[in-house]
Amino acid sequence: MGVGQSVPLTREQAHYLFGVMRMGEGTVLSLINGRDGEWDATVAQSSKKGGILVCAAQTKPLQMPPDVWLMFAPIRKERTAFIVEKATELGAARIMPVQTAYTNNADRIRVDKLRAHALEATEQCGGTYVPEVTDLAKLAKVLDGWDTSRKLMFCDEAMVGAASALLSDKGGPWAILIGPEGGFSDKEREQLRALPYAHPVSLGPRILRADTAAVAALTLWQQAIGDWA
Amino acid sequence: MGVGQSVPLTREQAHYLFGVMRMGEGTVLSLINGRDGEWDATVAQSSKKGGILVCAAQTKPLQMPPDVWLMFAPIRKERTAFIVEKATELGAARIMPVQTAYTNNADRIRVDKLRAHALEATEQCGGTYVPEVTDLAKLAKVLDGWDTSRKLMFCDEAMVGAASALLSDKGGPWAILIGPEGGFSDKEREQLRALPYAHPVSLGPRILRADTAAVAALTLWQQAIGDWA
Repeated sequence: MGVGQSVPLTREQAHYLFGVMRMGEGTVLSLINGRDGEWDATVAQSSKKGGILVCAAQTKPLQMPPDVWLMFAPIRKERTAFIVEKATELGAARIMPVQTAYTNNADRIRVDKLRAHALEATEQCGGTYVPEVTDLAKLAKVLDGWDTSRKLMFCDEAMVGAASALLSDKGGPWAILIGPEGGFSDKEREQLRALPYAHPVSLGPRILRADTAAVAALTLWQQAIGDWA
Repeated sequence: MGVGQSVPLTREQAHYLFGVMRMGEGTVLSLINGRDGEWDATVAQSSKKGGILVCAAQTKPLQMPPDVWLMFAPIRKERTAFIVEKATELGAARIMPVQTAYTNNADRIRVDKLRAHALEATEQCGGTYVPEVTDLAKLAKVLDGWDTSRKLMFCDEAMVGAASALLSDKGGPWAILIGPEGGFSDKEREQLRALPYAHPVSLGPRILRADTAAVAALTLWQQAIGDWA
């Protein structure tokens, strides 16, 4: 985006702005695209089928989160949506649904909806960065193509590692992997434990649901290694 | 509970066990009351209107969480329910809805429903302790009657304290206070900052919704002071 740049609206966006929110030509609103920070933009043209905004001035620079990905096995629809919302708020750079041996709902995942949730969560919290939500992929395949300079914080109720252990090896990019509600299979657990870049971390003595674990793990990571310190 | 003790069922419980779950006399199920751990109990009598369980053997002792309370200003119904669920999973000993200057939905809060959510979350995660959910009270009144030996971790987007500062003063009972979505009023913030037992803590550079803040704050506390270390 740049000063004076025109931004055309889709039919859906026009319906929301002019039909639902009753905005008209001349209205100034805040605009983000996930790459160029936040801009004030003015409605230059409006119709039922579309419209044009014109960028006036940047109001916030792009605020990048730390380089941490969140990988999780999809669960029930509203809890999967919740994980995407919370990961966006907590500053995950990328959100990756992965299919594990015990993932039940993988066929029902709607990545387009999850992308809309990430955008909405960014808007809701006044953010400027929208994390990429990747298509569902098999965990084994994701790990096959892994760049081994990216460390993996791996959370599972059978794990015993303390989060403070992360501090001993903090530099570089990271990913967090949350187990499915049924846990990892023995084979998966063995594979994960053998990865030289993986750090098992415990999330306390109580069993957490997968959505709770995602929020707790991102919190621990941001506090130990990310931008909360 | 004790071996051989009879536990009468309410009409609702009987409906769920015998009508919905189709259990019958002789079925063994897991029983918690929030005080005596988890027990195996056998269905001794069943009818549409009630029934009797008989305790057989304790399968888990009571697992108390650390002495930490979670205080929060009620938000939209499903997000308030979510806070209660997550606080139960994360090991809050007591959950206290409080009314602040900018709390909007206080009149709509249903504490009976919140208590049911806490019980359900305990069952769901195989826990044995059900946190007390107190009636809604005004924040000013709660702080008026405060036992000053209980420290207060106070989270607010205007705060700058690092969570690591908690470690300098960790002993004794604690409470966590999450601000309402509209933030604290200037007067509240001033009062809170002046309390000798209050520790302001930042939850990072991004704005979090109140439900996210509750989960993140409990995680940081459990990690720094509670039973996750």
